[in-house]
Amino acid sequence: MTEIRVGLLGLGTIGTGVARILIEQQVLISRRLGKQVRLVAAADRDLSRDRGLDFTGVRLTDDANDIVTADDIDLVVELIGGYEPARTFVSTALEHGKHVVTANKALVAKHGEELFPLAAEKCVAIGFEAAVGGGIPCLKALREGCAANAVESVYGILNGTCNFILTKMENEGADYADVLKEAQELGYAEADPTFDVEGIDTSHKLSILAAMAFGSKIRFDEVFTEGISKITADDIESAAELGYRIKLLGIAKPHGTDGNVERVEMRVHPTLVPANSQMAQVSDSYNAVQVSGDFVEHTMYFGRGAGERPTASAVVADIMDIARVVPDGVKHLAPPMGFVESERRDLETLPVADIECEYYLRLMVQDQPGVIASVTSILADHRISLEAMSQKERSEANSVPVIMLTHETSEGNLQAAISRIIGLQAVEEDVLILRKESAVA
Amino acid sequence: MTEIRVGLLGLGTIGTGVARILIEQQVLISRRLGKQVRLVAAADRDLSRDRGLDFTGVRLTDDANDIVTADDIDLVVELIGGYEPARTFVSTALEHGKHVVTANKALVAKHGEELFPLAAEKCVAIGFEAAVGGGIPCLKALREGCAANAVESVYGILNGTCNFILTKMENEGADYADVLKEAQELGYAEADPTFDVEGIDTSHKLSILAAMAFGSKIRFDEVFTEGISKITADDIESAAELGYRIKLLGIAKPHGTDGNVERVEMRVHPTLVPANSQMAQVSDSYNAVQVSGDFVEHTMYFGRGAGERPTASAVVADIMDIARVVPDGVKHLAPPMGFVESERRDLETLPVADIECEYYLRLMVQDQPGVIASVTSILADHRISLEAMSQKERSEANSVPVIMLTHETSEGNLQAAISRIIGLQAVEEDVLILRKESAVA
Repeated sequence: MTEIRVGLLGLGTIGTGVARILIEQQVLISRRLGKQVRLVAAADRDLSRDRGLDFTGVRLTDDANDIVTADDIDLVVELIGGYEPARTFVSTALEHGKHVVTANKALVAKHGEELFPLAAEKCVAIGFEAAVGGGIPCLKALREGCAANAVESVYGILNGTCNFILTKMENEGADYADVLKEAQELGYAEADPTFDVEGIDTSHKLSILAAMAFGSKIRFDEVFTEGISKITADDIESAAELGYRIKLLGIAKPHGTDGNVERVEMRVHPTLVPANSQMAQVSDSYNAVQVSGDFVEHTMYFGRGAGERPTASAVVADIMDIARVVPDGVKHLAPPMGFVESERRDLETLPVADIECEYYLRLMVQDQPGVIASVTSILADHRISLEAMSQKERSEANSVPVIMLTHETSEGNLQAAISRIIGLQAVEEDVLILRKESAVA
Repeated sequence: MTEIRVGLLGLGTIGTGVARILIEQQVLISRRLGKQVRLVAAADRDLSRDRGLDFTGVRLTDDANDIVTADDIDLVVELIGGYEPARTFVSTALEHGKHVVTANKALVAKHGEELFPLAAEKCVAIGFEAAVGGGIPCLKALREGCAANAVESVYGILNGTCNFILTKMENEGADYADVLKEAQELGYAEADPTFDVEGIDTSHKLSILAAMAFGSKIRFDEVFTEGISKITADDIESAAELGYRIKLLGIAKPHGTDGNVERVEMRVHPTLVPANSQMAQVSDSYNAVQVSGDFVEHTMYFGRGAGERPTASAVVADIMDIARVVPDGVKHLAPPMGFVESERRDLETLPVADIECEYYLRLMVQDQPGVIASVTSILADHRISLEAMSQKERSEANSVPVIMLTHETSEGNLQAAISRIIGLQAVEEDVLILRKESAVA
């Protein structure tokens, strides 16, 4: 039976999960694949820790360079994470004609445009299903399952930490800071949570999804990104009263003419979604990706976005896909980014000011006559119409929160209106701007 | 550029959709695939009807035999539906070394075990993503995306007609017969709705999913099947009061020892699912498939289960997958049923009496002292414990409905208890038995 020989970089949480599947699930994998997948070697700086696995026959090393250049390895799995040395190891492996599978979204988002051409040149595969949506086979669905479609939008709950925090804030009426602390104690959030809660991780993933959907290059640096740290329990309650839940969404849409995509809209921000939507129901640390296309309409893919076992499931699925075409070549696989490399275009990102959406605004205003009239008159000047408005009484404070839901307008126009509104003496400078999406399934 | 030449059998709703994609989306498909997909010929008994498409360069014929044997066709798309003549055309196409893509679940469920070996023998591919879950790439997700997993369960809302009817009954408090009539007028249900509402269509699809999940042979005739025609608006309301929604689910689970699947549980019936689950949220004519595995945990795939454009999207995705491996051979594709043909086993179906689940019972009892005591005493004899019970007063009738939710027991044990209960003079013979699943995501 044909055999594919795997070398593993990193025996942390996910690496251990991958080793576990390759060791424990050998028979099942062979029955599905008609080939053997054999773990030949694994590298980690710490080899002393007991991973509860029988590594008999597996070469263990603390030098990753041994693996990326070894003659007896066909496929390298990179699970170190971060930009370096992951980037160097992956490049070296590709240079040496080895297929690569990685779960590293930061690497793909930042250096993908250097790695994909290299992989194409060397005629090897590069798989990264686990980099977006953890165990959910959402990249496969977008790249292959929806391949007959011009993609009309992609929406994703892509960060389990944020979704866990927002769910807990909603269920318990608790404030952000308290829930974050609890999430940190439970290991759902890092000691420095910036990367997750400020939306950077979601931006990495969204930039990959957008490029795959529209045949563009990955432009992670250009994603408009806001995190969840300014959301209060009151905002979640106000949104609920209006029929919405707040989720940190990654959103990508194409802009162009005659079916040609010319510019790509990419944004990550807390978003009001209709409470009865499928997306609103995605709770706790679950992730979900919605892909809508001109033929398939709405589709959604749901599951665990992180964790040893789910992420390892996606890594091994990639290994099996690649194993199918060994030794006859990767031309039989869907190209990694869903379009053949020469057909991927360097499309412009839609400027932030041109983004059109509906808004949720939380203004803090002094409770005195005429303020609301002044605010709404400025909005009217900017042709921004309101879908709903509510004012809550807060006895102890000088200012009271006023919540407004607007109909669609451009970000540029909204920001112009807001800068005039906070010029009013009775309105505080600190305005919370959230965005609303009614088109989620 | 390499070209794959497609012949289409059937220009009905879905066939027209497939032709539309192949004609209108040519450029996009080539950019994704690096190859051309060309519609060479199409057959239909009625060629006079205007499909609103420009068939220039496409050979139109009323004789499907021309297509399945033609030298200039690499891949035949079968969209005639039903058992015959679809089976003969597909067999003939395979015999002539042509790849086949079909949306025909009845054909795959009933004759798949004859068609898969034939395809393997002839070294051609057979794709049927559109046969289950319409546009949702759920077979790909199960077969490839979750390939590293021992599948622990599959749950599916697989019939849009039933889900539309149940959603409308729930939203409007309307009765089955009225909603069915409306669904028929809207074209969501056939004039003879038996195939849909009695669960047969769902059974076709479930039997395919089960065999793909567990590496077994398709045993459509052995699926335990009940439809939705006995559900009343009151049942939906009672379930809601208990925190559940009623969905027609297809359910498949493996039984065995030491990770070896020995018997396969397959059932289709109206099912109570927790109201706050993802599955409960699947409304109207949407479909969803949940696949849970030992590594990936819960995953769910959601989208349109029928319709011209979504179904055509899945058909063309299959065509593109196959086109990738032309002319080098189908060994580079995942095997159609997710296990290599020689590793698929002829597993027993779990006998109905051995199915274990929780039950919703609706008994009609005379409102007189001691009846409930007698009923619960019989249940206790059979070691069936109750999770909840509610009795509603109905002023005008002799009998009142009593709703009971049981904890887990076997179908055999439950049926034995029920036959004793309806032996009680104060209990009517007509007992509604629904089943409950708490493990949906």
